[in-house]
Amino acid sequence: MPVNLQPPKPETLFPVAGVELGIAMAGVRKANRKDVLLVQIAPGATVAGVFTQNRFCAAPVILCRKHLAPSHTARALVVNTGNANAGTGDEGLKRALEVCAGAAAQIGCTPQEILPFSTGVIMEPLPSDRIVAGLPAAKADLRADNWTNAAEAIMTTDTVAKAASRKVNVGGKAVTVTGIAKGAGMIHPNMATMLGFVATDAGLPAGLAQELLQEAADDSFNSITVDGDTSTNDSYILIATGASGVSIADKAAAGYAALREAVRAVSIELAQAIVRDGEGATKFITVQVEAGRTKEECRKIGFAIAHSPLVKTAFFASDPNLGRILAAIGYAGVDDLDTSKVDLYLGDVLVAKNGGRNVAYREEDGNAVMKQPEITVRVVLNRGKASATLWTCDFSFDYVKINAEYRT
Amino acid sequence: MPVNLQPPKPETLFPVAGVELGIAMAGVRKANRKDVLLVQIAPGATVAGVFTQNRFCAAPVILCRKHLAPSHTARALVVNTGNANAGTGDEGLKRALEVCAGAAAQIGCTPQEILPFSTGVIMEPLPSDRIVAGLPAAKADLRADNWTNAAEAIMTTDTVAKAASRKVNVGGKAVTVTGIAKGAGMIHPNMATMLGFVATDAGLPAGLAQELLQEAADDSFNSITVDGDTSTNDSYILIATGASGVSIADKAAAGYAALREAVRAVSIELAQAIVRDGEGATKFITVQVEAGRTKEECRKIGFAIAHSPLVKTAFFASDPNLGRILAAIGYAGVDDLDTSKVDLYLGDVLVAKNGGRNVAYREEDGNAVMKQPEITVRVVLNRGKASATLWTCDFSFDYVKINAEYRT
Repeated sequence: MPVNLQPPKPETLFPVAGVELGIAMAGVRKANRKDVLLVQIAPGATVAGVFTQNRFCAAPVILCRKHLAPSHTARALVVNTGNANAGTGDEGLKRALEVCAGAAAQIGCTPQEILPFSTGVIMEPLPSDRIVAGLPAAKADLRADNWTNAAEAIMTTDTVAKAASRKVNVGGKAVTVTGIAKGAGMIHPNMATMLGFVATDAGLPAGLAQELLQEAADDSFNSITVDGDTSTNDSYILIATGASGVSIADKAAAGYAALREAVRAVSIELAQAIVRDGEGATKFITVQVEAGRTKEECRKIGFAIAHSPLVKTAFFASDPNLGRILAAIGYAGVDDLDTSKVDLYLGDVLVAKNGGRNVAYREEDGNAVMKQPEITVRVVLNRGKASATLWTCDFSFDYVKINAEYRT
Repeated sequence: MPVNLQPPKPETLFPVAGVELGIAMAGVRKANRKDVLLVQIAPGATVAGVFTQNRFCAAPVILCRKHLAPSHTARALVVNTGNANAGTGDEGLKRALEVCAGAAAQIGCTPQEILPFSTGVIMEPLPSDRIVAGLPAAKADLRADNWTNAAEAIMTTDTVAKAASRKVNVGGKAVTVTGIAKGAGMIHPNMATMLGFVATDAGLPAGLAQELLQEAADDSFNSITVDGDTSTNDSYILIATGASGVSIADKAAAGYAALREAVRAVSIELAQAIVRDGEGATKFITVQVEAGRTKEECRKIGFAIAHSPLVKTAFFASDPNLGRILAAIGYAGVDDLDTSKVDLYLGDVLVAKNGGRNVAYREEDGNAVMKQPEITVRVVLNRGKASATLWTCDFSFDYVKINAEYRT
């Protein structure tokens, strides 16, 4: 059961001029399943991407980087579920290129203008023939108002499709930002990974698009965790078509702040949706670490809390087990941390002060917070001005069940 | 159900001359439970210790470090279960000192000659009065052949007591090494932590004892993980009484190698026992990483595998889900790793070669290995001569159950 997450309503997803989406049932792994998405991009768009830091990166990630590098543009994305095309070596690259060639033939461009994305089982050969065979149907389905179907076509272990959309005023003109994502954990190499695609009809130069995307990714997808595993296929793509007539030349341009905020908001909504739909999740946890010396140390402490199986099982049990949180703060790797200055809040309840139990803290107050489906853990380090916010979910019987029983 | 782990038989635990152990039921947290252990050490013994790196270290750890620093000796250890005396601030230090003073009165020494250890609930006041009141009974129980009772008295979530013993020939004389440990995970702040105590009747100077202990700890307790959490109270202590008449002056001395190997063997047996008894464990997993450039990078990769909830749930399911292991290798943080050189074995089965699926690999061979209760994962990096061996367990429904339901 996802935590406070509803499927997107088609009418809330604004089309982005210059972007059309089409889906197909190509039988990649199972029959009668939406498993191929084709995203056609108008000529002249800027495309930026950020990709997994995993050394075992999948063949499509290698190709995406290669195809984006020279020009920061593309004419189409092809996404398949059911097979991640990872751990597949040179043969995997060859098959990913076959998909690019197939899509290029449909779109009328070169294979280098296609970006491929795969998610699903690792270490099995990509059925590129079936994907290519499905592309004409996806092409025939191309529509600008097809975002809901697109979000559904990229789902794997997701239980709810994930999409978000904003309209903002940029220099007096309406600009749209719409995105979709999939993933129910940081990694699920059998049948999942994190993929996200966001498009805007504003125009952006390549360098600025890349910077905007990296910043939005850091505050969203790079600030979530379900199980701490990093996929071989994680990718987040920004398409800026310019079709709205609004073009932003640099960070000082009027409207850049509004566009940046819209991209950031869509990214955070998508990233939070992944956590809300995290495998087995019953609680949505916000971890805020404040008054640190650097953002990096705040993130270290936040992720130590968010990754701890003991903290996560305590959330599942609605048990205000403060010792587990303090212990995670202590082993996060901030070597000069003065624990006697650390304050800890559960929701609005001050549970630990100066590194020890707050004398006024009553267990029933902690219990009341822990019973809520959405909980904020706030750590105040009292040693600087930096902060970081992360999102995670709890760790339940169902997480083990889903991951122990998936293939069998 | 622990994996291939039997309770120690009293006759297999050799007494160590110069060390006597006594237990008591002090009602620290629950009545009628062995919860206090007093270990009396003959005057003149050398005592070395290694302690948690957690910044939130518990009051007894602070006192142990302080008491050991000037002299590397002690007249007694006092261990209580039921309360970790962690996250308790100055009041916690005061109460730990009260326990030291109580033990000092029993033994006839100064409080500075007592080393205190606590394990149990975090952030609750230590009932030092009840512990002190229990010390006369523990003193009356002091015996050299009391190691089995001692191992039982320090258990918390452990299901089996943990002890190991060796007799070795050091320069023509018999020397004994006997140790006990407790813990069913790296951390269980409610009612557990890792504690280990090993004693020998060989004599050692302080510097050599500390070096020997650190080395043994690195190859044993620092090479295991159940859930990746590091306790606030972890402590491992070596007592060298010299009562055998064998004294070892330096590393070049005859018999040092034999003693070193015995301490190492006892440490590894105890550490492995903790993993075999890991919370919810159904499988005992050895992770060997070979042919790396440095031991540190081998350990990084080994721990990435051993910590991954996805890898651990796959072991629980007996599912040879190789992609999860490869993904963990890829995100371990070895930035210049050439994944196209990595080979992966499950037991003796070569499952991945040159970073991709071995063409000769058949899933039924992987399945056969995964069904065994003890499994070795071997990663060959093919880039150097360093190696590391770690031990872990799988991740089961029962882990979640134990940690979600413990306090409730």
